[in-house]
Amino acid sequence: MPIGEKPGRHMAAEVNEQPAVWQRILADQRRIREIAARLAARRPRFVLLAARGTSDHAALYAKYLVEITHELPAGLVSPSTLTSYGARPRLDEVLLIAVSQSGHSPDLVRTIEIGRAQGALTLAVTNNAASPLAQASELNLDIRAGVERAVAATKSYTAQLLTLYLLLLHMRGGEGRAAERMPEWGRQMLDQGGALARIAERYRFAERLVVTARGYSYATAREAALKLMETSYIAAQAFSGADLLHGPLAMIDPLVPVLAVIPEGVGGRAMLPVLARLKEARADVFTIGNASAVASSSAGLVLPEGVAEEVSPILEILPFQMLALHLALARGADPDAPRRLSKVTETL
Amino acid sequence: MPIGEKPGRHMAAEVNEQPAVWQRILADQRRIREIAARLAARRPRFVLLAARGTSDHAALYAKYLVEITHELPAGLVSPSTLTSYGARPRLDEVLLIAVSQSGHSPDLVRTIEIGRAQGALTLAVTNNAASPLAQASELNLDIRAGVERAVAATKSYTAQLLTLYLLLLHMRGGEGRAAERMPEWGRQMLDQGGALARIAERYRFAERLVVTARGYSYATAREAALKLMETSYIAAQAFSGADLLHGPLAMIDPLVPVLAVIPEGVGGRAMLPVLARLKEARADVFTIGNASAVASSSAGLVLPEGVAEEVSPILEILPFQMLALHLALARGADPDAPRRLSKVTETL
Repeated sequence: MPIGEKPGRHMAAEVNEQPAVWQRILADQRRIREIAARLAARRPRFVLLAARGTSDHAALYAKYLVEITHELPAGLVSPSTLTSYGARPRLDEVLLIAVSQSGHSPDLVRTIEIGRAQGALTLAVTNNAASPLAQASELNLDIRAGVERAVAATKSYTAQLLTLYLLLLHMRGGEGRAAERMPEWGRQMLDQGGALARIAERYRFAERLVVTARGYSYATAREAALKLMETSYIAAQAFSGADLLHGPLAMIDPLVPVLAVIPEGVGGRAMLPVLARLKEARADVFTIGNASAVASSSAGLVLPEGVAEEVSPILEILPFQMLALHLALARGADPDAPRRLSKVTETL
Repeated sequence: MPIGEKPGRHMAAEVNEQPAVWQRILADQRRIREIAARLAARRPRFVLLAARGTSDHAALYAKYLVEITHELPAGLVSPSTLTSYGARPRLDEVLLIAVSQSGHSPDLVRTIEIGRAQGALTLAVTNNAASPLAQASELNLDIRAGVERAVAATKSYTAQLLTLYLLLLHMRGGEGRAAERMPEWGRQMLDQGGALARIAERYRFAERLVVTARGYSYATAREAALKLMETSYIAAQAFSGADLLHGPLAMIDPLVPVLAVIPEGVGGRAMLPVLARLKEARADVFTIGNASAVASSSAGLVLPEGVAEEVSPILEILPFQMLALHLALARGADPDAPRRLSKVTETL
């Protein structure tokens, strides 16, 4: 790092840039509509998603959208089955979507190549339309987040979420009302940065924590945990609320901080029994969610009112990104360049 | 617990019973062959798996078998999309397999009911043929592990793995050679119980650890982490070797113990670059795997020679079960009855 550069300055700038990125995506949806029309015309019967790291959480969000709003069976591909084990499945009537910020990971490029050769309709969703992944794919969609400098992905993640949301919406002929106010809500969330800096103090010395959510917001829990791991080196574990009750609940006690995501809607309601069990365990629960869920937690942050559940993950991650940033700085790390990581991870 | 009962006695007995359970499954495969023939006759084009907790790791193993040996696209169902969000996907040509020890979780019963109504061929794999899940399903397969008393599932897990392996093998007309010597190898692994008790001392005071593997053995990593969480309350995190490099590697240092599973074969070979990166991070890596991988780790335990990779997970989990048992006892917990858990978990 050149002398005089502040640790985390790229991550801070990119976190704050998000409402502007969303504004840009919302303002010009021609390419998204064009791709959506081409996907719809092929009438896929199954949807497979392939991704790694942060992009895998955008893929997980898309899996819920496919299953719930398209009512199609979906799966997350284990790339090694194709790349290492050499499986060559029959993939006609399958839509295969690869999601990657850089578009450079060799295993994803190979997955798209094999998927295409096996008859799948292939789509790459990347932040680089000139990348090998975008080139290998029959169709490609640029998330237009702009260059991302911090190793910890932030604006590319929410740009992936919004792009995938709009794509799947247009594919089924829906209207984009739910996403219109995103930039405004995003700025409201970012205005709480000062509160997040104080909240980070609660976790300053924590060695571990648990993040939990259900439904669409499960992707938020997974991404929040990864962000905390890669920037603050904390042992952050994400569980779906249901899976938490099937075992990991045993390790929860007042010394294991829990972060819960409980927005309005179906997924949030499904978290209420989980919240009750966490109370029995006398857990410290910090909730990012609706006012009533926050009121029945140890502490929390209320999401803007009127946000539809299916777009809520785009907003929910912002406080976690700010928390990760503040916590990393407090703990002496540089979230722009976490130890041992580089911006493009190449796995085979 | 009645006075005079030793903590962990059920778990210890059930861990040791596993080779006998496998012997029983291998000795009479009529029912498995019958179900396999019925599945094959329907020629499914897509396989969905639904499960929670330990059974979800058996489902993950089955997903790899489906993708690699059947070359069919597969997915793990998010049950809430059907049960809470009310999605009603078109599921003809889909095989839906639910895996559950108890066969009692309401969300899985509902998933099978909805799947069946939507045209899927449904199969329940349970340890109780009279359970609501087995009854709701068109087909059901009893894993015949016998009553499991410890809350931490052990023998039911490996019975699920072996049953699913044989089922998918017979479904494609394969021969069961790879599994024949399982009981003998299992006894060899269990004979190392003393070594595991000593190894448990290494982790006596650890607050966190990471388990990693790739391919078929990724299921082992996930199940090992869950076993350690629910019995020893340790923050155990499982990552596929590839995903570890996409972020979580940043939190690895000499103070975060790593447990790696590196058997002979494709998945094990794909772990070698991961092992190299862990070395760069000066991580303490304990490997359960082939002799050469163990030799290049900090410490380890060698798997029997000649085990085919696709059945290796059935053996690999045994040392982790023993480790979880010894560690729980050393830390003053009772693995037969972890705090806050009961044998049947009911999630909606």
